[in-house]
Amino acid sequence: MSEEKLVWPGSALLGPVPPVLVSCGAGEKANLITIAWAGTVCTQPPRVAISVRPTRHSYGLILESGAFVVNLPTTALAKAVDWCGVKSGKEVDKFAALGLHTAPAAKVSCPLLAESPVNLECKVFQRLSLGSHDLFLADVVAVDVDEALLDSAGKLRLERAGLLAYAHGDYYALGRQLGKFGWSVRKKKPGGKKPRK
Amino acid sequence: MSEEKLVWPGSALLGPVPPVLVSCGAGEKANLITIAWAGTVCTQPPRVAISVRPTRHSYGLILESGAFVVNLPTTALAKAVDWCGVKSGKEVDKFAALGLHTAPAAKVSCPLLAESPVNLECKVFQRLSLGSHDLFLADVVAVDVDEALLDSAGKLRLERAGLLAYAHGDYYALGRQLGKFGWSVRKKKPGGKKPRK
Repeated sequence: MSEEKLVWPGSALLGPVPPVLVSCGAGEKANLITIAWAGTVCTQPPRVAISVRPTRHSYGLILESGAFVVNLPTTALAKAVDWCGVKSGKEVDKFAALGLHTAPAAKVSCPLLAESPVNLECKVFQRLSLGSHDLFLADVVAVDVDEALLDSAGKLRLERAGLLAYAHGDYYALGRQLGKFGWSVRKKKPGGKKPRK
Repeated sequence: MSEEKLVWPGSALLGPVPPVLVSCGAGEKANLITIAWAGTVCTQPPRVAISVRPTRHSYGLILESGAFVVNLPTTALAKAVDWCGVKSGKEVDKFAALGLHTAPAAKVSCPLLAESPVNLECKVFQRLSLGSHDLFLADVVAVDVDEALLDSAGKLRLERAGLLAYAHGDYYALGRQLGKFGWSVRKKKPGGKKPRK
């Protein structure tokens, strides 16, 4: 590390972020848009937020239905993720063009992306206009999980999904696991104090 | 991929997310807290959001000063990231306990984490109570960048930082680069059409 840092004007350099494939609309109007400005905002109740430019085709679809699905991207979907961030659903059926498939959601009108191993079904409860982007705050009302991600005890092993990350214009696979939450304070003996959640 | 998906109740499964080290407070009250519920919410103006439990010591510090710094975590900081998410600044000086250092910020009262290669100085403009967590929405008013991350042309090479990701209780290094934004539509010949931003 250098001793000196450069001071730059503010910019959107937070990363890595999840470049999620958001599905919205329904039926023939179903669309996919890549959103990297996405995050969890509350644990209980489970809530997420995504930021969408009002100029995007998906913006109107989300506004109209008040719902969307956050489909977690995998390395196998990397090129589709990039393409869905660049192309517009006004001009092309992205599912058809990419050979991807919809599947019905349990709790919202818009479809899941079948090829994504984890889908968060979301209902919008608030929208904030922030400038270039509007922030949609939403309740996660259901989660669809590929059974292949469960171990023999029925526990979700998300590391099997091969999730995709995005930082400063680059897409990355996740690399090596460095530790589990709480590992820095975990005692080696059984019966050690559990970390605070 | 299995043909069937399991439908679960909603939960906070969005990932990977950035487990950032947020510095807040000032002087002897300076503190570090790990926040994985963090994201970019607007490009222009550059704005981020972090979610903090009102029970956390840092919550009051952020509320009081209306400012915080998002320090991007690296794999070298992984154990500190975990520890700062588990311990409370009420009980311990986290900088001292971890041998980490503060550095003055350019535009806000709270310090930077010197060991983080990229620091986003943030001023809160709105707070939303969402349940277990409050969402602090903030303008990124300055960014501090370690000169070691710049290439000979002065371009930021964030991939050199060794950023840290978090998903479903696990910390990860970033793995291999899979492509750059727009690569799915980039023509191979020079002078090809540039992707839309």
